Amino acid sequence: MTDTPQTPLLDRIKRPADMKSLSDRELTQLAGEVRDETISAVSVTGGHLGAGLGVVELTVALHAVFDTPRDKIIWDVGHQCYPHKILTERRDRIRTLRMENGLSGFTKRSESPYDPFGAAHSSTSISAALGFAVARDLGGVVPEGLGDAIAVIGDGSMSAGMAYEAMNNAGHLKKRMIVILNDNEMSIAPPVGAMSAYLSRLYAEEPFQELKSAAKGAVSLLPYPFREGAKRAKEMLKGMAVGGTLFEQLGFSYLGPIDGHDMDQLLPVLRTVKARATGPILIHVLTKKGKGYAPAEAARDKGHATGKFNVITGEQKKAPSNAPSYTNVFAESLLQEAADDDKICAVTAAMPDGTGLNKFMERYTSRCFDVGIAEQHGVTFSAALAAGGMKPFCAMYSTFLQRGYDQVVHDVAIQRLPVRFAIDRAGLVGADGATHAGSFDVAFLANLPGFVVMAAADEAELKHMVATAAAHDDGPIAFRFPRGEGRGVEMPERGTPLEIGKGRMIREGKRVAILSFGTRLEEVEKAAEALAAKGITPTIADARFAKPLDRDMILSLARDHEALITVEEGAVGGFGSHVAQLLADEGVFDHGLKFRSMVLPDIFIDQANPADMYAVAGMNAEQIEAKVLHTLGISQIGAQRA
Amino acid sequence: MTDTPQTPLLDRIKRPADMKSLSDRELTQLAGEVRDETISAVSVTGGHLGAGLGVVELTVALHAVFDTPRDKIIWDVGHQCYPHKILTERRDRIRTLRMENGLSGFTKRSESPYDPFGAAHSSTSISAALGFAVARDLGGVVPEGLGDAIAVIGDGSMSAGMAYEAMNNAGHLKKRMIVILNDNEMSIAPPVGAMSAYLSRLYAEEPFQELKSAAKGAVSLLPYPFREGAKRAKEMLKGMAVGGTLFEQLGFSYLGPIDGHDMDQLLPVLRTVKARATGPILIHVLTKKGKGYAPAEAARDKGHATGKFNVITGEQKKAPSNAPSYTNVFAESLLQEAADDDKICAVTAAMPDGTGLNKFMERYTSRCFDVGIAEQHGVTFSAALAAGGMKPFCAMYSTFLQRGYDQVVHDVAIQRLPVRFAIDRAGLVGADGATHAGSFDVAFLANLPGFVVMAAADEAELKHMVATAAAHDDGPIAFRFPRGEGRGVEMPERGTPLEIGKGRMIREGKRVAILSFGTRLEEVEKAAEALAAKGITPTIADARFAKPLDRDMILSLARDHEALITVEEGAVGGFGSHVAQLLADEGVFDHGLKFRSMVLPDIFIDQANPADMYAVAGMNAEQIEAKVLHTLGISQIGAQRA
Repeated sequence: MTDTPQTPLLDRIKRPADMKSLSDRELTQLAGEVRDETISAVSVTGGHLGAGLGVVELTVALHAVFDTPRDKIIWDVGHQCYPHKILTERRDRIRTLRMENGLSGFTKRSESPYDPFGAAHSSTSISAALGFAVARDLGGVVPEGLGDAIAVIGDGSMSAGMAYEAMNNAGHLKKRMIVILNDNEMSIAPPVGAMSAYLSRLYAEEPFQELKSAAKGAVSLLPYPFREGAKRAKEMLKGMAVGGTLFEQLGFSYLGPIDGHDMDQLLPVLRTVKARATGPILIHVLTKKGKGYAPAEAARDKGHATGKFNVITGEQKKAPSNAPSYTNVFAESLLQEAADDDKICAVTAAMPDGTGLNKFMERYTSRCFDVGIAEQHGVTFSAALAAGGMKPFCAMYSTFLQRGYDQVVHDVAIQRLPVRFAIDRAGLVGADGATHAGSFDVAFLANLPGFVVMAAADEAELKHMVATAAAHDDGPIAFRFPRGEGRGVEMPERGTPLEIGKGRMIREGKRVAILSFGTRLEEVEKAAEALAAKGITPTIADARFAKPLDRDMILSLARDHEALITVEEGAVGGFGSHVAQLLADEGVFDHGLKFRSMVLPDIFIDQANPADMYAVAGMNAEQIEAKVLHTLGISQIGAQRA
Repeated sequence: MTDTPQTPLLDRIKRPADMKSLSDRELTQLAGEVRDETISAVSVTGGHLGAGLGVVELTVALHAVFDTPRDKIIWDVGHQCYPHKILTERRDRIRTLRMENGLSGFTKRSESPYDPFGAAHSSTSISAALGFAVARDLGGVVPEGLGDAIAVIGDGSMSAGMAYEAMNNAGHLKKRMIVILNDNEMSIAPPVGAMSAYLSRLYAEEPFQELKSAAKGAVSLLPYPFREGAKRAKEMLKGMAVGGTLFEQLGFSYLGPIDGHDMDQLLPVLRTVKARATGPILIHVLTKKGKGYAPAEAARDKGHATGKFNVITGEQKKAPSNAPSYTNVFAESLLQEAADDDKICAVTAAMPDGTGLNKFMERYTSRCFDVGIAEQHGVTFSAALAAGGMKPFCAMYSTFLQRGYDQVVHDVAIQRLPVRFAIDRAGLVGADGATHAGSFDVAFLANLPGFVVMAAADEAELKHMVATAAAHDDGPIAFRFPRGEGRGVEMPERGTPLEIGKGRMIREGKRVAILSFGTRLEEVEKAAEALAAKGITPTIADARFAKPLDRDMILSLARDHEALITVEEGAVGGFGSHVAQLLADEGVFDHGLKFRSMVLPDIFIDQANPADMYAVAGMNAEQIEAKVLHTLGISQIGAQRA
C-alpha cells in the first residue's frame, strides 16, 4: 500500500483563504506537499497525473494571489485540476477521483463553487473566462461574487479554433481578463501545428520577447527584476507600430515566458497583474508535464493518464487482458487495408494514441495526419482528401466528433463525399464520465441523407466494418465501437466487406425479437439465456446498420413476433427512432406490435465503471430480460412458472 | 426590363482556357464585361451582389493565370462566385441563379467541375485547399487532375476558428498551397474582432509590411516593382528571427497587401506565385465589396444580398408584406423583455442583421455581443454569461448552430446552464438551398438531458416563446422559427410565458389527430378544411414542445383517435421520434394505433421557394390531406363520396 505523505503545512490549509497568511517561502513548501499528495492520490485511483504535476506551483500561486471562489479560475480541459481540488475543500475525497460517487476527474460546477465552469473537452476556457468577465462588468449576480476571470490553457489546447475565436473576441472587447498559457509542449501527445512551433520560437528567443512586451507598453506591468531589460529593449524598438507576438496582434498584452515552477517568478508576476491589469493579458508560463515525479517525467506521455501505480517505482498495476481492445482492432485492421490500398489515409485530431493511429503514423507517415485539436478542420480536410481521390479514415471519439458536426453535414454529407468515420468511445465510457460519453452520434448522423451508419457488435464485426468502409466509395460511412476490450471472439485473418444495409440473424426464437445495434448484443445474449430458463426463447438479430436499415429483416421480425425490442448504446433519436419511423411508415403499428426501444436514458450519467453506468442506464442483461418480460406482460414470477 | 449589356469579349470566352490568349489589357476589359453581366444577371434574379462585384478582377486574374479545373479554386462561403460561374461554362444559366432547377447561389460540386468543393457556410476553404494539396502530393486521382489548390477567403471568414485550425495545420505540413485573403472589411456585416483590427493595421502600415515580408525571405517571390523596397527593408530588419505578420507566425509566406481591383498588380503577383511558390503562401488582397456599381457601393451592406432591382437606379423590387417576419417578431419581443430585465443580453455570430439583433445592439449596446463567425465560442461564451448570472439569448440560424453543437452539449447542457437559443431559419429556407436548411436542430437538441425545445406555430406563439425563454431559469431552452413572414395573426401586446411542456388544442375532431410542431400548423389547418369537405374532421393540436413532451395531451390524443399523425419541419430523430418513443414506452402500439410521423425526407432539397421545397418534402396541405386519407384507408375517391 501507498504511504500517505507527510504534509504538515497542507494539513493546515482547509481552503484557499487559509493560504493568505503564508509567506512566499511557505507557499513553496506548500507546493511540494501538494505535489506529494497528488502523486499519492493518483497512485491509489489512477487518472491524469502528468498535467496536474505540471501546474502544482501555478495552482498554489493562483490561489495564494487571487481570491477564489470570487475570482474564477477556469482550468482548460480540467485534467490538471487535482492539485486545485486538494486545495479547494476536496482533499478529503481526493482518493475517490474518477470513481463511482467520487470526485470527477475534471472540474465540475455541481461539485464545488471553486469550479466556476466545468470542462473535459479542450479549449473552452478563454470563452468561459470572457463570459465571466463580461458578466461581472454587466452586474451579473452569483452567490460567490464575480471578480477576476482567469483561464489556464495548455499549448496543445491552443491549436483549437475555439481558443482563437475567443481571443479574437476578447481582444476586441478589451475587458480585463487573464489567460495563462501553460506551455509544456505536450498535451496528450506532442503538439503539432504551426502554433506549437511558434511558441517554441517564442521562448527560444527570450531577449526578443522582453523587447516585444516592452514595445507594447507591457513593461509597466512587469515586476522589478524584469523591468530593466525590458526598458532597454523598448528603446531599441521605438516606433514599431505593428507586429509583436501573435497574442499582441490579437489584442492581448503579453507577459513572459516565465518559469512555471519558480514561485519567485510566479508570485510577483501574478501579483502585479492582479494589481495593474486593465485589458486582456496573456501570461506565458513554461512548465514540465509530470514535474517532480521521476517516473512521469521519464515516460513518453509524461504520465498523461495512468492506472494505479507504486509510488516508489512508478510501476502501474494493470489488469490482465483477455481480448484486444476495440481501438487496437480498428488500428490493426486499418493497417491491413492500407497495406493493400495506397489511397487509404488517416486523420486524427490530436489523439494518435487514443485512436490507435500511432501505429499507422509510424508505418505510413505521409498518409497520416494529426491536425491538432481541430475537429472542424479535420473533418473538412478529410472531405477534401476524398474529393481529391483519397480514401480518408477520420478517426475521432464520438464525443469529439460533435465538434465537427457542421462540417460533417455541410462538407461531407451534402457533397456525398466518401469520408470514413471511425467513431471510437461510442456509448458510456467509464471513468471519464458524462462529458466523454458517446451518446449522440447515431442520432446526429443517421438523419443525414446519404450516410451509412454502422455499429460493431464485437471485435470481429469491427474488422469487417473497417473493410466495409474501405470498400465503400459512394458517399460517407461511419462505424462506431466502444471503449475497452472486445468479447474475445475468434478473429478473421482479414475483414470482409459487409453488404450495405443488411443485418444478420443471431438466433431464431419465438414471441419476441430483440434487435441489437452495437455491443449490447452480448448483454442481449445473456438476457436470452436467462429467459430460456424461463421458457422464453427470443429471436436475436444484429442490425449492423442504423442507416440504411435492413427493411426486410426488420419488417419480417415485426411480422413474425408479438414484440420487437431495439437495444442501442445511444440516445433517443438514433437507431430505435429510425426503426420506429420505418414501422410507422409501413403501417406495422396499425394493428398492434409490442414495440420498445431501449436507449440511453434522459440523464447525464456520472463516472463509474461502464457496467455500472449501463446499470444506471437500464441496459444490462437483467434489465433487458426484465424489459422482455414486462413487454410480454409476464411477471417475473409468472415467467418462472412457465 | 433590364437590357443585356454589351459584352463582345466575354461573348468569345466559353471556358477559362479561352482566356489564355488574351492580353493583360484584354483581361482588364473582360473584367469590366463580367462586372456588367453580373449586375445584369442579379438584377433579374436577386441574390448576393456585393461580394461578387468585389472579386471580379480577382476572378478573371485567377482563371487567366491558373489552369482550372485542374487547379482548384475554392471560394469561401461561395456567395462571391457569380463572376466565376459566368466564366466557367454557366453563363447561359446565370439568370437562373437561386431559382428552382437553376444554378445554386453558391459553389456546388454537382454543378460543375470548376467547383471542386462546394460551400455556403464560411471558413471551410483553407481546410479544403489543404486537403486538395495533400491529395495531389499523395497521388490522388480525379478526372480533372490535381494541380494548385487556391482558397479565396474573406476577412470576415478569418474570424472563424476553423480558418485558424486550417492555417495551423497548413503551416505545419508546409505543402504548396495558396490562400488569398480577400480583405474588404465587410463580410455580411462589418467585421468584428481583434483579427479585423489587426488586418486594418496591416495595410495601414504598408512600408512595415514590405519589411516583414522581406524578413521572412518572401522577397524572392515578389514581382519586380515590389522588390526594391522590400530588399531595402530587409536590411533594416536583419537578425530578427521571431515576429512577422500573424500569418508568417503560423508558417505562411505573406505577400501584400495588393490592390484587388488593379490587374497590373494581380496578374504579376499571381504569375510569380504560380511560378515560384513552394510552401503555403498567403496573398493579402484589398477589395471593395460592391465595387463598380454605385448603388451597391453606397449601400450600408454594400449590396450584400438584394432582391431583383432596376440596374439604372438600383431600386429593389419588393413584394408588399402583410405580416411581420418571424425574425422581426423575435427581435422586437426580445427588446420588450430586455427593457424590463437588465440581465437579458444577446449574442450573435456575425449575423446582427440576419437575426434581427441589430436593433438590440443599437438600444442595449453593452448587452449585445457580435462574436464574429465563431459559433463555438459564441455558445460557450453564452454559457459563461449564464454562469455569471446573466440571461443570454444566443441567436443563431439552425444550420449555423451545428457549428457549436459540442459546446451546446458540453458547456450548456451538461452544466444545465440557462442559455436561451433563438433558432432562426428552422426548416427549409428557399433560395439558399440545402446548405442553409434548418433540418436537424430538433433531433440534435431534443435528446440532450435537461433541454427545453420549442417551435413556434405562428408569430404570436413566437412572442410567447421569447417570454417563456426569458422566464425560464432552470437549464437551457431553445425555440425555433422559420425564415419569412408570419401568418398575420393578431399579436399580443406582450408575450406571456407558456407552461413548460404543455401543448394546446387547436380544434377537436374525430378519428384522426394531427399533432403539429412548428409552422406547418397553417398547412395542417388547410388540410383539415379540405378534409372537412370530405366528411372528415381531424383533431388538431399544437405540441409547442418537443421536449418535454406534453405526455397527457399526446396519450389522450392517441387514446381517443384511430390515427395520430405528427408533422414537423425537421428530419427524423426529432419531434416525431420522441412522440414514437413515448407511445412505445407506454405500450400504446401494443393494441394498434395508426401512427405516422411526417418529417423532412431523406434527401437534401435544392433551392426553390419554400412552398415548392415543402412540396418536394411532401409536407404541404394537399400532402397532409393525402396522408390522413391514406392512413385512414380512405381512397381520395372514396372520401369524396363520403
